[in-house]
Amino acid sequence: MARLRASMSARAKAIEGMIDRLIPRVEGGEARLIDAMRYATLGGGKRLRGYLVAEVASLFKVAAGGADRVAASVEMLHAYSLVHDDLPAMDDDDLRRGQPSTHKKFDEATAILAGDALQTMSFDILANPLTHGSAEVRINLVRALADASGAAGMVGGQMIDMEGEGRALSLEEVARLHALKTGCLIRYSAEAGAILGQASEDVRSRISAYGRDLGAAFQIADDVLDATASAEELGKTAGKDEAAGKSTYVALLGVEGAAKEARRVAEQALSHIDIFGPEADRLRDLVHYVVERRN
Amino acid sequence: MARLRASMSARAKAIEGMIDRLIPRVEGGEARLIDAMRYATLGGGKRLRGYLVAEVASLFKVAAGGADRVAASVEMLHAYSLVHDDLPAMDDDDLRRGQPSTHKKFDEATAILAGDALQTMSFDILANPLTHGSAEVRINLVRALADASGAAGMVGGQMIDMEGEGRALSLEEVARLHALKTGCLIRYSAEAGAILGQASEDVRSRISAYGRDLGAAFQIADDVLDATASAEELGKTAGKDEAAGKSTYVALLGVEGAAKEARRVAEQALSHIDIFGPEADRLRDLVHYVVERRN
Repeated sequence: MARLRASMSARAKAIEGMIDRLIPRVEGGEARLIDAMRYATLGGGKRLRGYLVAEVASLFKVAAGGADRVAASVEMLHAYSLVHDDLPAMDDDDLRRGQPSTHKKFDEATAILAGDALQTMSFDILANPLTHGSAEVRINLVRALADASGAAGMVGGQMIDMEGEGRALSLEEVARLHALKTGCLIRYSAEAGAILGQASEDVRSRISAYGRDLGAAFQIADDVLDATASAEELGKTAGKDEAAGKSTYVALLGVEGAAKEARRVAEQALSHIDIFGPEADRLRDLVHYVVERRN
Repeated sequence: MARLRASMSARAKAIEGMIDRLIPRVEGGEARLIDAMRYATLGGGKRLRGYLVAEVASLFKVAAGGADRVAASVEMLHAYSLVHDDLPAMDDDDLRRGQPSTHKKFDEATAILAGDALQTMSFDILANPLTHGSAEVRINLVRALADASGAAGMVGGQMIDMEGEGRALSLEEVARLHALKTGCLIRYSAEAGAILGQASEDVRSRISAYGRDLGAAFQIADDVLDATASAEELGKTAGKDEAAGKSTYVALLGVEGAAKEARRVAEQALSHIDIFGPEADRLRDLVHYVVERRN
């Protein structure tokens, strides 16, 4: 796991630097908006999604500059969803990565607008010729991100999550909720690397299946963490799911059962990338990492 | 003006039909999200932005199907901005086109998510091959929309607008605020028609300048309307600008002065399209319309 942590931390630094350059500070009335966008996207995090983009892209020898831009783009998309999710009208969360969430640090209106502008920017970055020379590749990235993050993906999942609060969901419903809410964007991150690498249809769909199962394992493990870890370990409020009356894998399967399910799905993720040699070892390490992490 | 109204109303109907097909109703937990997206985008409005896309595209003999998709896309983008703008943390507006605004009809969380998903969908539609056969054209549309609507465009303008509340802005500051907040998207709408039509660089920049000045004239006229029309005429709360302590053209120039400035900018808009013959007459009528309308 040490080699993975070193690799993730180096990549997180590169992505952080890219975001810093993509959202330069400005003067004037919009300075507050830019500051909030920077606050929401800079200053850490594991950058799992960005790492996934970059690692998959490296399988296909994609230039690091383009991959880091796509990685920064998906981290901005992810950050926008967290900023809006933390709002009082949504999950009403005051803490994010151990720091005040964006609407606490700034104000609600600024947080809404910063989230909006981060979404726009994530598409803007993909569409820019600096990301890839081919308009076809760029348009495929835009389409894949829109599919993963819109009403039929992440935002649809957030809606289902809210609708499901306070009533018991079946295991199937919980799985679908998470596949949409967090799974789609993680799957996209893997797929984006394959799109950048102009991988064949078959390889792209394997990478996509890997990403889908990695995302599912990540989410099940997240439920386990929420039920077992402390706020200090998590850097956010712990036990929120239970308090909000949300149906989770842990509520349905118990802590042990959920941990076992995470390992089963993780095995499945690994099977999709068995066509690759040692060059995919970090993608394999990542699968182990998401089910074993403590924060 | 009668021929323009007939043309706008026919086009609005086509755009309405396109939006209806692009956001089909669904079952399940996300039904509420889709219903809110439909509520925010269907059921009327002048469709000024969509009309502009379609009219400019028709100058270049673009197929109506593609133009209507781009028109629907910009109307969705516009609708998302209104949904978020009406939220309690922002302008806190209960009425929109004479109907309850989206967060009043549904709830705040649903309105936030519906706005988010509408933004995503507006990019998704542009990127889809049904919009145009050329990936280059589609990527140019995505880039132009992202430029117009993000932190350096519409959302930046919304931030400046909020920052400026309660303090006196100069005429120059007010002009910049509006150029960003509403002008960019109107300019984009004209430009999108030229992008779809694969117009030359020179023609595209004339169309863009036309759109910019049309948007400015529209906004100045809007300030005049807000100060002089009734809520019944407007279909929204009247006199909000003054109540919110916002600096407007009317506050700076008086009602007569602002009306005169609108006419001056309108003349400027017309000059940019003097290279076209009678085929651009509806674009000319539109300029007169935006400064003369009563709602």
